[in-house]
Amino acid sequence: MAGQVMKNWLQQRAYLTPNRVALIFENQEWTYEELDADVRSLARKLGTNGVREGQHIAFLMDNHPKTVMLVHALHYLNVVMVPLNKRLSPAELDYQLQDADVDVVIVDRRHQSVSEELQFENILPLDEILQSEENNSELIESIDLDQLHSIIFTSGTTGHPKGVMLTYGNHWWSATGSALNLGIHDNDRWLCMVPLFHVSGLSIVMRSVIYGITMVLHTGFEPKEFIRSVHENRVTIASVVSVMLSNVLDSEMFKPFPDAFRCMLLGGGPAPLPLLKRCEAERIPVFQTYGLSESASQIVTLAPEDSFRKLGSAGKPLFPSQVKIVPTNDGDREVGEIHVKGPNVTRGYYKKESVNAEKIKDGWLATGDIGYLDEEGFLYVLDRRKDMFVSGGENVYPAEIEACLSGHEAVAEVGVIGAPDEKWGRVPAAFVVVRKQGEVSKQSLIDYCAARLAKYKVPNIIQFIDEIPRNASNKILRKDLHPFLKKDDDYEG
Amino acid sequence: MAGQVMKNWLQQRAYLTPNRVALIFENQEWTYEELDADVRSLARKLGTNGVREGQHIAFLMDNHPKTVMLVHALHYLNVVMVPLNKRLSPAELDYQLQDADVDVVIVDRRHQSVSEELQFENILPLDEILQSEENNSELIESIDLDQLHSIIFTSGTTGHPKGVMLTYGNHWWSATGSALNLGIHDNDRWLCMVPLFHVSGLSIVMRSVIYGITMVLHTGFEPKEFIRSVHENRVTIASVVSVMLSNVLDSEMFKPFPDAFRCMLLGGGPAPLPLLKRCEAERIPVFQTYGLSESASQIVTLAPEDSFRKLGSAGKPLFPSQVKIVPTNDGDREVGEIHVKGPNVTRGYYKKESVNAEKIKDGWLATGDIGYLDEEGFLYVLDRRKDMFVSGGENVYPAEIEACLSGHEAVAEVGVIGAPDEKWGRVPAAFVVVRKQGEVSKQSLIDYCAARLAKYKVPNIIQFIDEIPRNASNKILRKDLHPFLKKDDDYEG
Repeated sequence: MAGQVMKNWLQQRAYLTPNRVALIFENQEWTYEELDADVRSLARKLGTNGVREGQHIAFLMDNHPKTVMLVHALHYLNVVMVPLNKRLSPAELDYQLQDADVDVVIVDRRHQSVSEELQFENILPLDEILQSEENNSELIESIDLDQLHSIIFTSGTTGHPKGVMLTYGNHWWSATGSALNLGIHDNDRWLCMVPLFHVSGLSIVMRSVIYGITMVLHTGFEPKEFIRSVHENRVTIASVVSVMLSNVLDSEMFKPFPDAFRCMLLGGGPAPLPLLKRCEAERIPVFQTYGLSESASQIVTLAPEDSFRKLGSAGKPLFPSQVKIVPTNDGDREVGEIHVKGPNVTRGYYKKESVNAEKIKDGWLATGDIGYLDEEGFLYVLDRRKDMFVSGGENVYPAEIEACLSGHEAVAEVGVIGAPDEKWGRVPAAFVVVRKQGEVSKQSLIDYCAARLAKYKVPNIIQFIDEIPRNASNKILRKDLHPFLKKDDDYEG
Repeated sequence: MAGQVMKNWLQQRAYLTPNRVALIFENQEWTYEELDADVRSLARKLGTNGVREGQHIAFLMDNHPKTVMLVHALHYLNVVMVPLNKRLSPAELDYQLQDADVDVVIVDRRHQSVSEELQFENILPLDEILQSEENNSELIESIDLDQLHSIIFTSGTTGHPKGVMLTYGNHWWSATGSALNLGIHDNDRWLCMVPLFHVSGLSIVMRSVIYGITMVLHTGFEPKEFIRSVHENRVTIASVVSVMLSNVLDSEMFKPFPDAFRCMLLGGGPAPLPLLKRCEAERIPVFQTYGLSESASQIVTLAPEDSFRKLGSAGKPLFPSQVKIVPTNDGDREVGEIHVKGPNVTRGYYKKESVNAEKIKDGWLATGDIGYLDEEGFLYVLDRRKDMFVSGGENVYPAEIEACLSGHEAVAEVGVIGAPDEKWGRVPAAFVVVRKQGEVSKQSLIDYCAARLAKYKVPNIIQFIDEIPRNASNKILRKDLHPFLKKDDDYEG
């Protein structure tokens, strides 16, 4: 398939803006020229180790400059990359490696022991690559936007993970669509504490090279380090989810961000009102977003000026993209499944022809999320379709109840599921992490909801737990809450 | 041909950012929502007047909000637009109308008398359109990037004008490529005193709707109005050529621009050193560019920080584009014809198959301009290939001599051509407009050049004239300088 052809992005950046800072990690910096030199060396060492055009190469690696370099090196070899989630079990990894037809998996030192537990045998340790000689093969210095770039497994909050196929074009259009929304400033520096194996982190690698800005990379999320980095590295944009942002603001190290900090890009569900209010007080501009692996990250964004007027909304689509609601069969005409379309949207899941035929029609992808558009066209995401449950004939969206409880000052985190109930079919059960133990009673939380939600949405069950199970992108894993139900004294279902 | 499909750009803007200011003209403002409403009305009136999808519609109109609206209305009808140069003679206009297979030409009141002199008969006065009823046909609310958007005749500094075919995609990629270079700020307002019938003005219409910023439109160039508008309309970016910028700085009304003014985008040849120095002193950031109708405006740009280090250079390509030098046969290996490639570059001239076969190979367009790349990859444009002449076996580039003479403080404008000479074949002849009459002698200008240029480049002939002939985009029309030679007492050829 032949599409729009461009120069390799890193090569073009090293030519156009060689002296701009491409990457900051701890106390190290790389200009685009330096990064390109290191990446070319790595690509040639990969060549020595048998990595060839057209292969599918997976990696199981921490957030590290070498991971960024590997991504760019794979571009120079025109290899399809399969980023693996570090938190998966060996069995889950084996499933993905087989499903994505992976030729070789590259592992860093930290994941070498995990890799030894795999059935999959073609394991190439990063250390071995780095110690090898460079071969002298020609690097591939052009990019065809229609080429397959990556297979990224859906984060798997529901069902079996599927490999989302993303082309170079999907990443390109995601980056330019985001730029048309958030702008591009000369001094931009994008903080990345989200995982590089997830589209939220990988998309920062793409945006930074396409925009010619600096990526400020960290191994993972740590509130104090976030605050230090924003100040010391002159960060202007950061990608977070609510729980990260909340922890940053709660940190004793928190001090107001510099004026140059212009965008807190917040994914993974709408921000609760108290969090938005704290951000407003601290003059932190929050851009809430709705994104998917399938759309190469954000596809709908809410500007800070609309945060309060459109509380709970994810905003409007990026300029090149579209969103529509396809009514579900529950008779509620306004609410339905969210469908998205645009040049950043995947052309399908790898080797899932029947799923693709069902989920993608005329370029419109059925997201499996439930929501509605208001009269101005702002999108409200209610929940994952599969997380919705029926209570006494009414549709209940756990996310709506979570958003309500998140507004209570004693609640740090909350997850809601539908617990089996003989009378109602299902009833809401809320799992709550409190800020300070003993600070709030179950009844007062129920009363709080009763004052704000329809009767059928008020939790019948409240249970205090220590931690909400989350996946690598910090989304709540509601299916992992179900086992807690059985152990619960309060369980009345 | 089916390419990437998007929502109609204005429609999408009216949805995403309805309340942002789209257009300012004199004391009037339109938000995107208001502009879209006016454009839809105009599109339906065009429908009433028989304008149909697939037609070629020319327009002969001043810079005016109605012209901007017409451009957008033609998008809603999926009509190919043919903007006509107001300065052309009726015979020239007839040539283009026929060559571009135009169905109808729309004329505003100012150009109605010209249109009556045309052989071409399908003339539709704008006034007539505006007074008609709206039909109720469906507007076309999507855009296919591969569709033909416009046929723009090359400005014709040399040879017969050819109709450059530009797709929606060419304009889209030009706008996004420019954004990746110049950035996008929330408060951007782009001043347009260049003609809308030329790609320099038309591209501002495209950029403003794609970025969601404000276009500050003027009927034409006037230095005092330029200065007033920059201050009062809070302009941040302006498109100019050297002579415009020079007149602005010379104006008695000039006062330092606000800090928010961040980009003076200067096309039409490199800026002379004295002009750059004045801009530096006035803290005006000058981005010099090299652009063509064929590349939907700028394709190579020089950042202000490189202005002095790379004096005379046009800079480096936009991120999605490429530039290379194809050596000419003159033995000078570094110098050659400039070829450009990229998604903003035309796929060809309308109905000029043999020219296209000769000039476009593997996506690379031969520009007809002569230049070279320095060791860092900065482009230097020497001249139009056809304006180059040979003197005593040496290639002489008029633009190089013009750039030298422009540096003399007494010189306001200068044009150079090759005058026939029995001994040398051709010798340089310089036509000079002085700042104040009698301020400088011909000999002192020759001495000035002799101190700076190789002997064969020093003009043998200097002639003072009142005005340098220029085309609509303010480029020097060197062919129109030749007739002056015969009348010149100093003619020694």
